[in-house]
Amino acid sequence: MSSVLILNGPNLNLLGTRQPEVYGAVTMADIESLCSAHGQSLGLTVSFQQSNHEGALIDAVHAAKSVHSAIILNAGAYTHSSVALMDAISSVELPVVEVHLSNIHAREAFRHKSYIAPVAIGQICGFGARSYTLALDAVAGHLGLAQ
Amino acid sequence: MSSVLILNGPNLNLLGTRQPEVYGAVTMADIESLCSAHGQSLGLTVSFQQSNHEGALIDAVHAAKSVHSAIILNAGAYTHSSVALMDAISSVELPVVEVHLSNIHAREAFRHKSYIAPVAIGQICGFGARSYTLALDAVAGHLGLAQ
Amino acid sequence: MSSVLILNGPNLNLLGTRQPEVYGAVTMADIESLCSAHGQSLGLTVSFQQSNHEGALIDAVHAAKSVHSAIILNAGAYTHSSVALMDAISSVELPVVEVHLSNIHAREAFRHKSYIAPVAIGQICGFGARSYTLALDAVAGHLGLAQ
Amino acid sequence: MSSVLILNGPNLNLLGTRQPEVYGAVTMADIESLCSAHGQSLGLTVSFQQSNHEGALIDAVHAAKSVHSAIILNAGAYTHSSVALMDAISSVELPVVEVHLSNIHAREAFRHKSYIAPVAIGQICGFGARSYTLALDAVAGHLGLAQ
Amino acid sequence: MSSVLILNGPNLNLLGTRQPEVYGAVTMADIESLCSAHGQSLGLTVSFQQSNHEGALIDAVHAAKSVHSAIILNAGAYTHSSVALMDAISSVELPVVEVHLSNIHAREAFRHKSYIAPVAIGQICGFGARSYTLALDAVAGHLGLAQ
Amino acid sequence: MSSVLILNGPNLNLLGTRQPEVYGAVTMADIESLCSAHGQSLGLTVSFQQSNHEGALIDAVHAAKSVHSAIILNAGAYTHSSVALMDAISSVELPVVEVHLSNIHAREAFRHKSYIAPVAIGQICGFGARSYTLALDAVAGHLGLAQ
Amino acid sequence: MSSVLILNGPNLNLLGTRQPEVYGAVTMADIESLCSAHGQSLGLTVSFQQSNHEGALIDAVHAAKSVHSAIILNAGAYTHSSVALMDAISSVELPVVEVHLSNIHAREAFRHKSYIAPVAIGQICGFGARSYTLALDAVAGHLGLAQ
Amino acid sequence: MSSVLILNGPNLNLLGTRQPEVYGAVTMADIESLCSAHGQSLGLTVSFQQSNHEGALIDAVHAAKSVHSAIILNAGAYTHSSVALMDAISSVELPVVEVHLSNIHAREAFRHKSYIAPVAIGQICGFGARSYTLALDAVAGHLGLAQ
Amino acid sequence: MSSVLILNGPNLNLLGTRQPEVYGAVTMADIESLCSAHGQSLGLTVSFQQSNHEGALIDAVHAAKSVHSAIILNAGAYTHSSVALMDAISSVELPVVEVHLSNIHAREAFRHKSYIAPVAIGQICGFGARSYTLALDAVAGHLGLAQ
Amino acid sequence: MSSVLILNGPNLNLLGTRQPEVYGAVTMADIESLCSAHGQSLGLTVSFQQSNHEGALIDAVHAAKSVHSAIILNAGAYTHSSVALMDAISSVELPVVEVHLSNIHAREAFRHKSYIAPVAIGQICGFGARSYTLALDAVAGHLGLAQ
Amino acid sequence: MSSVLILNGPNLNLLGTRQPEVYGAVTMADIESLCSAHGQSLGLTVSFQQSNHEGALIDAVHAAKSVHSAIILNAGAYTHSSVALMDAISSVELPVVEVHLSNIHAREAFRHKSYIAPVAIGQICGFGARSYTLALDAVAGHLGLAQ
Amino acid sequence: MSSVLILNGPNLNLLGTRQPEVYGAVTMADIESLCSAHGQSLGLTVSFQQSNHEGALIDAVHAAKSVHSAIILNAGAYTHSSVALMDAISSVELPVVEVHLSNIHAREAFRHKSYIAPVAIGQICGFGARSYTLALDAVAGHLGLAQ
Repeated sequence: MSSVLILNGPNLNLLGTRQPEVYGAVTMADIESLCSAHGQSLGLTVSFQQSNHEGALIDAVHAAKSVHSAIILNAGAYTHSSVALMDAISSVELPVVEVHLSNIHAREAFRHKSYIAPVAIGQICGFGARSYTLALDAVAGHLGLAQ
Repeated sequence: MSSVLILNGPNLNLLGTRQPEVYGAVTMADIESLCSAHGQSLGLTVSFQQSNHEGALIDAVHAAKSVHSAIILNAGAYTHSSVALMDAISSVELPVVEVHLSNIHAREAFRHKSYIAPVAIGQICGFGARSYTLALDAVAGHLGLAQ
Repeated sequence: MSSVLILNGPNLNLLGTRQPEVYGAVTMADIESLCSAHGQSLGLTVSFQQSNHEGALIDAVHAAKSVHSAIILNAGAYTHSSVALMDAISSVELPVVEVHLSNIHAREAFRHKSYIAPVAIGQICGFGARSYTLALDAVAGHLGLAQ
Repeated sequence: MSSVLILNGPNLNLLGTRQPEVYGAVTMADIESLCSAHGQSLGLTVSFQQSNHEGALIDAVHAAKSVHSAIILNAGAYTHSSVALMDAISSVELPVVEVHLSNIHAREAFRHKSYIAPVAIGQICGFGARSYTLALDAVAGHLGLAQ
Repeated sequence: MSSVLILNGPNLNLLGTRQPEVYGAVTMADIESLCSAHGQSLGLTVSFQQSNHEGALIDAVHAAKSVHSAIILNAGAYTHSSVALMDAISSVELPVVEVHLSNIHAREAFRHKSYIAPVAIGQICGFGARSYTLALDAVAGHLGLAQ
Repeated sequence: MSSVLILNGPNLNLLGTRQPEVYGAVTMADIESLCSAHGQSLGLTVSFQQSNHEGALIDAVHAAKSVHSAIILNAGAYTHSSVALMDAISSVELPVVEVHLSNIHAREAFRHKSYIAPVAIGQICGFGARSYTLALDAVAGHLGLAQ
Repeated sequence: MSSVLILNGPNLNLLGTRQPEVYGAVTMADIESLCSAHGQSLGLTVSFQQSNHEGALIDAVHAAKSVHSAIILNAGAYTHSSVALMDAISSVELPVVEVHLSNIHAREAFRHKSYIAPVAIGQICGFGARSYTLALDAVAGHLGLAQ
Repeated sequence: MSSVLILNGPNLNLLGTRQPEVYGAVTMADIESLCSAHGQSLGLTVSFQQSNHEGALIDAVHAAKSVHSAIILNAGAYTHSSVALMDAISSVELPVVEVHLSNIHAREAFRHKSYIAPVAIGQICGFGARSYTLALDAVAGHLGLAQ
Repeated sequence: MSSVLILNGPNLNLLGTRQPEVYGAVTMADIESLCSAHGQSLGLTVSFQQSNHEGALIDAVHAAKSVHSAIILNAGAYTHSSVALMDAISSVELPVVEVHLSNIHAREAFRHKSYIAPVAIGQICGFGARSYTLALDAVAGHLGLAQ
Repeated sequence: MSSVLILNGPNLNLLGTRQPEVYGAVTMADIESLCSAHGQSLGLTVSFQQSNHEGALIDAVHAAKSVHSAIILNAGAYTHSSVALMDAISSVELPVVEVHLSNIHAREAFRHKSYIAPVAIGQICGFGARSYTLALDAVAGHLGLAQ
Repeated sequence: MSSVLILNGPNLNLLGTRQPEVYGAVTMADIESLCSAHGQSLGLTVSFQQSNHEGALIDAVHAAKSVHSAIILNAGAYTHSSVALMDAISSVELPVVEVHLSNIHAREAFRHKSYIAPVAIGQICGFGARSYTLALDAVAGHLGLAQ
Repeated sequence: MSSVLILNGPNLNLLGTRQPEVYGAVTMADIESLCSAHGQSLGLTVSFQQSNHEGALIDAVHAAKSVHSAIILNAGAYTHSSVALMDAISSVELPVVEVHLSNIHAREAFRHKSYIAPVAIGQICGFGARSYTLALDAVAGHLGLAQ
């Protein structure tokens, strides 16, 4: 089975445990369960990593090279400013799918810019937890595991 | 069964029939077949419309209101300039998913801006024909037909 | 009696029939009745045309030349982008009064810019349906039919 | 009878008395006569004030609160720069109609921006003295005194 | 004989019939006669199409593919805003020469930008009706029919 | 005892007397009482001045020179545009502390810019009436009256 | 003898009396003496006015019309922001020479812009008090009193 | 007693120990002593944390949620670029007061922008070590512990 | 016979002799032969001048006044920056046709701007050596030597 | 006697000999006569140099160092673009007075910027030939030869 | 012997081990060997540190103060965004030479901006591994160890 | 032995002979001696050329083609504006190393931009005369004469 890393950036650790009346009750753990199951149905082993540190995300991208076949990346706020993360993705040969829980293009102008996009296959945003499972489908398709 | 309109904008009629060495051999008709089948598996009836005319796309959005439960919209080049199409979507109460064949955020700067995004649920781009089937999954999820 | 064309652009056909809780219950048909009556009191015959097509609006401006004495134009979203419509007005010798239902200068920045304004006599915006009757008064004054 | 303040900003005191070959012979006094008469026909008592001082215009807006039902404001050149006047209008609860003799959107770019617009009901510009009587009609309509 | 489409955009239908004191008395029909004759001398059959509709111009570019050897395009005001028309030209393999009656680089700043230029062979502007016959010479040269 | 001038700009005279449901019931008179008492505890005599006139504020800064040891300045909307007020502060040798009731950096972009800041010791904003007493503390510290 | 008004804007009243180690010991009174004498030698009666109030400067420009033959204007910081003062000058038919003590084009970028310049004959800046006497020479020349 | 976290960002660890002739001899340890004492007098227990790592600051904001009642944040250079830190503050429900030793609005333009400000109660800058004690007063007031 | 100066700017002397695999083998001498012959057929004597010096090009424009009836100008890289060359053309009364070998509007953004265009009759670019012969046709037409 | 160089840039050699109906009949030779005489009356020997070459102007500034006491510089169009000329002035220790015949701040925006101003004593513009004699007065004053 | 720290930022750890067909086979270890040897020949002991964490780079700059005589810094992508790293360099008194493997000024626009440059002695970029040995020469020269 | 041209632009002829207290006493002649000696040690013959004329620098680049193996270019102020010099370098096949005495990225913003950089191998700036010898090392390395 192919292996996929789902890599999450700053503040995503708080999902669902804070202000549930605003962001809903879905936690990152719930998303992980959802993705593990969905991945399995697609023939994909799914690993998870989260960090609030830009450097740790870069380290994770580097380390993924010899372990995973693709990365699903929600870089959070670093999406909009991290040239270093963009360069990290360019440095490895793994396909990357960019995801966001919210529709970043419908929010503040500074969230429309993505430094991840130019080095990613594609972008999926605005569908909440479903953004992740759609990204798994996209990865599976890209790897030839699905139609 | 719920009904979804897949609405395509300018130049998408030429897909696959011109410069296949560049854009591949997949035609819009192929995408329609793919989507009809995939929609059926999700409990969705799928209709298709394409026009090179901004006004015709607006007319189609208006007409969709009483017929369809959702719109999957690839507005092509009008994505980047059409306030009128944005207003049309605001005027009806249908959920809209924005799709693009290519990763518009990895292309020329003027293609990064989307007037559709602020009034859409979310955006899926960069996955070729698969962008459409992912959008059908997103619609199905949004309508409560899928997980 | 002088004749005036009231020309409406994209999405204005939906006025009052969709989301009445938001935009009110006044329809474009109501505005037409209001304007016909008000025009008559001013000695003006009023005609109406609406299209979601930029090209059709240009055609209508051209055709107005030999039929009408003035145009009241609500170009909707094309106000903010249509150099072609601006040029159409420049090409004919009819006086044009620009109207908007909402106060466009109090909305998003991209709605402050008008390509119609530089070729119009004046602009009236923000008074809802009354914007149209005020425009008729302005036309009547301009044509010497009123003080 | 309701009372309306017509408040004029810098340089409007010179109207009609200087360079009549350019601006016409209509004076501010003429506009006042015109407006008094037109106001009376609408059931509105009209008062007039003019100052070249930004601070005096702010004072006048403050003072209008307890005396008038609405303000018709031609802020002249302060339209384009006075955040203080904008805030003054926000501070009182009177409806304000913005007027200009000329079509400011057809002039130099720095005259397109209005700090009054975001806090006004609407804007009427380009109709010379008639801009004021149209504004009275708009006020009358807004106050429920006219159709 | 090779065939060339001369495609004209918005407002060019009015040429010569309105405000002859401004734009001269040369009509689009005159230009067509001029071009037909000049084309014949170069071994080129010349066809003409004009529309005020952006979508119709895109349709015409698409249709030209199987009929003509080259397009001479005066996109009028759509020159400055139509990404869709740019994409239409990219989608077909016909050589395109961009023409303008006036010197667009000597006019308002917003007319300096051309979305047609990046996908055209070259641009000829400022020579009135002669811009078209020079474009025919350029096409003939490009097709190897002239020096 | 040292003397401090608390100088308030446009619209601050209305504080607390208009729309108390929005801005609260604290009036400028209340702030004056609060500051007089707090100043006394710090060994500072506090004077107050307010004007809606930019020129009057400049006059007040000039006059403060020979009377006061420091100025606490809330320039209101003139904060964002008045080079003249900035120059006035540069012209006298008094220390100036800039205050704002609201957090100006969390409001519209045009309120982020301060022409007062480059010539002030520091800025305190966002704490309502408390912004003034904090500024008194800052002045006392600056003058060596407090730790 | 012709009469010239030398009109000074904000903060110029403080010249020479504050921070003489920075700005020198020359006061506005000294400049007035200098200009009175120099004017007399040129056949010009010179009057002086100074205000920190933008409105008062506008009033002064208006009043100058029937009294003076020319204005020498140092608008101070209002130079860079006052559209109202620009309009005041446009409203009267007096020639205006713009002066500045310092070389405004060698200072902060926001001091390079002048709203006075487009309606003035010319600009003299950077020569301290001598800027004023040079301006008197320029006025004398303009009025035909000097070579 | 309520607990407050004083969180310092990059380079603030060097305060007072390097280049004392420039920044003075006050060290961060001195500020901590000062704040502990001042906090005690206000009924506030004060904790301190400093890191040069953006991620560590985010972690600290997250951790503060269950331990502290408020945060006083000097984000140093991350103030001007860290959307991630802004989002961290939005994610927790603690009140944040932004402080800076220097008056950031009087320094280079890139230091005027704060990503912290939009999610903070208010900002205090320019008063050196006193900025921190003023912030404690502000926190005490906000928590109802002081007037 | 009328005389035309073909004036070439910086680096055009190298045409065809360097990197022929890139720019082709056509030299400036070849273009001169081509133009001499084509000019003769149009009744035009053609002279040629080339310089890498902006000042020398200005001198040449000045000198052309009394010798030539028109100038065909390829200002090379000075096109994009030389206000001085623009002013030189304004200073003489000769008609100027601007040419470029490449389509400058399809290259880097800084090559889209032309300081020559505002003072030229028209612009021809993108047709290689043929740009020059088309320019000769345009000049002949402008001088009434051709249709 | 002190010596002054009057250095003129591109196109100023044509003054008065071309289009006298536009620029007047005053030639550069006339200005030289005027300045020689006026200089003599001030105790200044005046030399003149003009070039259309930026490099020649730089050479002239360099050479002036050991010969002249001051430079009056009308850099023409190089004013707006020449960093090299600015650096040349910085490299020598001569005082420079910047002059322009026209009021450059009342012309196109690109003429408002001066690279000469930051390294000049002051600027005089808009007074035609008189700009030069005023500059001589300014130089005489600066050198202590006049009041 | 003097000691130099060569500090490398994000992604430089991957040099030479990934995509050797693109970046060549030179690894960071190779550069270290090269620099150790070259340093020795110059009388410099060379240490190496690399991190993908912005905070770790700041920590390293702080720690270098008491150990090294100079820093050679390749901040990688943080070059373009890190105000914090700039401030760290300002906080210590070590001379810093900025190096880059590639010519950053010949790449994407966002790579032209360096926050390191304003606080570095100089910049060397574009020479691959040789950029480092040239930097060692520059450091040796700066420290007086070489000519 | 290979030959290198060291080409210097405007104002560099004055180095060391003017304001030695500012720029030091090193003259361009000193740099030439330094470079000749250093070149010899590297197996490089070094030639020198300097001009204040942009055109002369272009001529020199053209002439270098058949004589030299590389160019070391300090284009001085033309660095920031000369597209023509950039094109000259593109036109010849010689490797170019860009040097500057000062660190241009630490100076005024308009000096950060280099038109030379995109067509050079690399850039060395900020090391005074040593910038040149480092450039010789870089050239030697590039030509395979050094490690």
